[in-house]
Order: sequence, then structure tokens, then C-alpha cells
Amino acid sequence: MTQPTAALIIIGNEVLSGRTQDANLKFIATRLGELGIPLREVRVIPDVPETIIATVNEIRAAFTYVFTTGGIGPTHDDITSECVARAFGVPWEVHEPSRAIMEADYARRDPPVSMNAARLRMATLPRGAEPILCSETSAPGFRMENVHVMAGVPRIMRSMFEVIAPTLQGGTPVKSRALHANGLLEGQIAEALTAVQNRFPALDIGSYPYYRAGGNGVALVAKGTDESALEAAAAEIAALIRADGKEPVEGEPPAA
Amino acid sequence: MTQPTAALIIIGNEVLSGRTQDANLKFIATRLGELGIPLREVRVIPDVPETIIATVNEIRAAFTYVFTTGGIGPTHDDITSECVARAFGVPWEVHEPSRAIMEADYARRDPPVSMNAARLRMATLPRGAEPILCSETSAPGFRMENVHVMAGVPRIMRSMFEVIAPTLQGGTPVKSRALHANGLLEGQIAEALTAVQNRFPALDIGSYPYYRAGGNGVALVAKGTDESALEAAAAEIAALIRADGKEPVEGEPPAA
Repeated sequence: MTQPTAALIIIGNEVLSGRTQDANLKFIATRLGELGIPLREVRVIPDVPETIIATVNEIRAAFTYVFTTGGIGPTHDDITSECVARAFGVPWEVHEPSRAIMEADYARRDPPVSMNAARLRMATLPRGAEPILCSETSAPGFRMENVHVMAGVPRIMRSMFEVIAPTLQGGTPVKSRALHANGLLEGQIAEALTAVQNRFPALDIGSYPYYRAGGNGVALVAKGTDESALEAAAAEIAALIRADGKEPVEGEPPAA
Repeated sequence: MTQPTAALIIIGNEVLSGRTQDANLKFIATRLGELGIPLREVRVIPDVPETIIATVNEIRAAFTYVFTTGGIGPTHDDITSECVARAFGVPWEVHEPSRAIMEADYARRDPPVSMNAARLRMATLPRGAEPILCSETSAPGFRMENVHVMAGVPRIMRSMFEVIAPTLQGGTPVKSRALHANGLLEGQIAEALTAVQNRFPALDIGSYPYYRAGGNGVALVAKGTDESALEAAAAEIAALIRADGKEPVEGEPPAA
């Protein structure tokens, strides 16, 4: 079975200017890995229509699933939805069921909130889009073919992602085994680690130095879909750490 | 004067798998903004030679300055340097001055560290590259034309960036003015904010909801190089917040 693939497009000047620390990539990457849909590329792009349109069209042709975050609120810099419509060459028009849901939600607020032109933009979708309605807001994300358009606010994005997740055709989940050891030096074990990688070409073996109050060292992480290969590789990694005179510890190093 | 532009390529399976939270984008974006070199695009790509080579070649043709992070250590998954050599079509060869610096550093360690084949990879650079030597490690980053190759470890990356910074031809620094108000709703002020954006087309005005223990609200941020326009826009933003019955506060909202 061929693994499906995914790409993420993070849309927003605030990430590119350094104002905002992206908090969505890690969540989406982790959840997609669990679903067996490896995230293969991320692009962070500005609120520029031509850039959004060209990027969506390039990326949706190259990956099984595409996710976008950001730019679906009510303000002038929220242009993702209309750009996705232009990317697909379809009209961008009020989606009546979404408008009704939003109006009902607004009427229940205390004090009530009125549907105005700005808020109506959030009920305006590319023709043919399927709304993604989550528990955090009445304003929808949407799916257009293989492109899933989500909010940038992490709490809302996560809720939208969990609505989308059951609709995705997952692959074999990617599992991982991590070992770490204080005092380990990458340059000292690199050659032995290369040999392990060469013996398990289907696994992705990574080496990550860490610098913590509890000591510096290296984490060695094997990832892949074949659990018996993962077990065997983990045993070889433990052995190479011991051969260097250090004591391997299961798992990632404790957080700084 | 045309503003120079920059792009960042984050190289590493560990970011795409969700193992590692990227901690470099925000720093680089902020520092480049201060230098008047707006960051215009970021790509996160895996440790796959063809992807690295194609991305470096596409991006270096499109932006004034390119920065990469990750993949210059001693292990088998550190392939950025040889991929940059292939992108430029030059040999990848031992850089003797870098080897000498690393050997001298290793000899001073207690216990001494030996130069082996894995560590020698870190002194191997594309022909014609200019090493970037920082205070955090004797293993160099390097510049190849407009491409600056840096480490992925944040402490080392920051040190390398500050070595590079004085060599960049900066533009007019991007300044910003932020105002925020608890209780503000984006949908309520969106139309007035659009009018401000339209009156100051050279500024980039963003609207960012926040959700904090101290209250929810919206931060409105104007960015640009024209300080008098920024002042005038900030005054109009303060007025539109007051017109909505809320009290504008200077600056970003306090951290959660």
C-alpha cells in the first residue's frame, strides 16, 4: 500500500514577521503521523493573493492531502477563502446553510451579535466546498477536493482537525522508538549509527543533540511502519550506545 | 529603494514528524525585520536530497537572501551541505582551514576528541563556500552566494545569524505599532479597520484575536517603514476601538 502524503500551508504575515510563534505545525504533524499520513512539506506564505493561489495549486497537485491554517476570519487580511475559490476557478459565494448556523449562533449570544458584511465573509465559501463545522465556533472551515481550510487560532484549528480526521484515508501509522543517553557525542557514534540506518533502509533514523539542565546528550529516534524492524533497530541503537560506554535510556530526554 | 527579501528553508524530518517544535523561524523573522529584510516565505522540507537541491535552487533565484537551518551535523541524516554543493554544481570537498580549526578545538577538549570521518564531514563544504564561524562551535556554517547555511540547534543558529547579520545589505527597518483591547470582537470592527488599511496602503495592518486568562480581545498591529504613517494609522486604530466602546491599550496583550 502506498502511504498517502500531506502538506501544510500556513498563511499569515504574522508568522513571517515574527509576531506570532506558529503553534499548529507540531500538532498537525503529530496527528497526521498517527493517521499514517506523513507530512512531507510545509510552506509559510504571506497574505498575498497571487502567492496563496499559486501555492495552493502547486501543492494540491503534489500531495494526497493539503491543509491550510489562517486567514478565514472576518477582517481585510483574511483572504484565504476567496483565494482558494480563485485557485479552483469557482465563484466565491454565500453558503446559505453556514449563514443560517452563524446567525442562529449570533442571536443566542449575550449581548446578541449582528450579522454584518464582515461576518458574512466567514459564511462565504468557494462553490462546491463542504463546510467543516467544529464545536469551537459557528464560522466554518471547509474542504475543497483534497484541500482542507482551517482557522489559524490553535484551539479552533485543533477542533476542526478532529472533525476532518475521520474523513481521511489513513495509511499505516508511523511508529517511533527513541533512546537517549547523557554524555553521548554525535560525532562519536555517527559511523555506527550510519551502519544501523543502512541495515534498516525502510526506517528513518534521526540523531538529535539536546542541551538540558539535567545534562547534555543525544536522542536517537527510529521511525517507520514496520514494528519488528523498529524493535530490532532499537536494540542495535542501544548496543551502539553501550559500546561507546554510555547507558541508553528508553524514550526522549526529559523536557528542559 | 527596493527592499531586499529573504526566505528560510528549514531542513529536517524531525520538524515534519512533529518530534521537534521549530524554534528558529520566529527569531530569524524578527531579526530580519529589524534589518529591513522582510522574510517572505518559509519552507519546511525533509532530509531528501532531491527535495533539498530543488528547493535551494528554486528559492535562491527568487529572493535576495536565503537562509537554511538544520542538517549540518556529523550524522548520516545531515546532508544539507552536500546537497547545497549539488544545487550549485560544485564539488563537495574538505575545507582545510575549517578542518584545522576543528582539530585544534578537539585537541583542547578534556577528554580530547578525535577527528574521525563523521566529524570531517562538518569541515567539508561546497567549493567556493565562505565558512561562517561562530562562538558556539568550531564546526562552520557557510555562505554560498546568497545562501546562508546554518545549524538547526537554536543556540548555534542564533550565534551564526549574528555573524552573518553585519554582512547583509539591509533595507529600511520595518517598524510596528500594536494596540489591543479586551472585549473587542473582530467582526465588530472589521469594516472600520478595512477603511484604515485602505487609507494606508503602504502599511500592513493585521488583526489578531487573543484568548488569555486576563480576558479575550483583539490585537491590531500596523507594520511598515514609514513612521509618520504608522503614527497616523495607530491614532485611527485607537479611535475605532473607542468608537466600539472599548479602551485601546498600547502594545501587544500580555503573554498568556
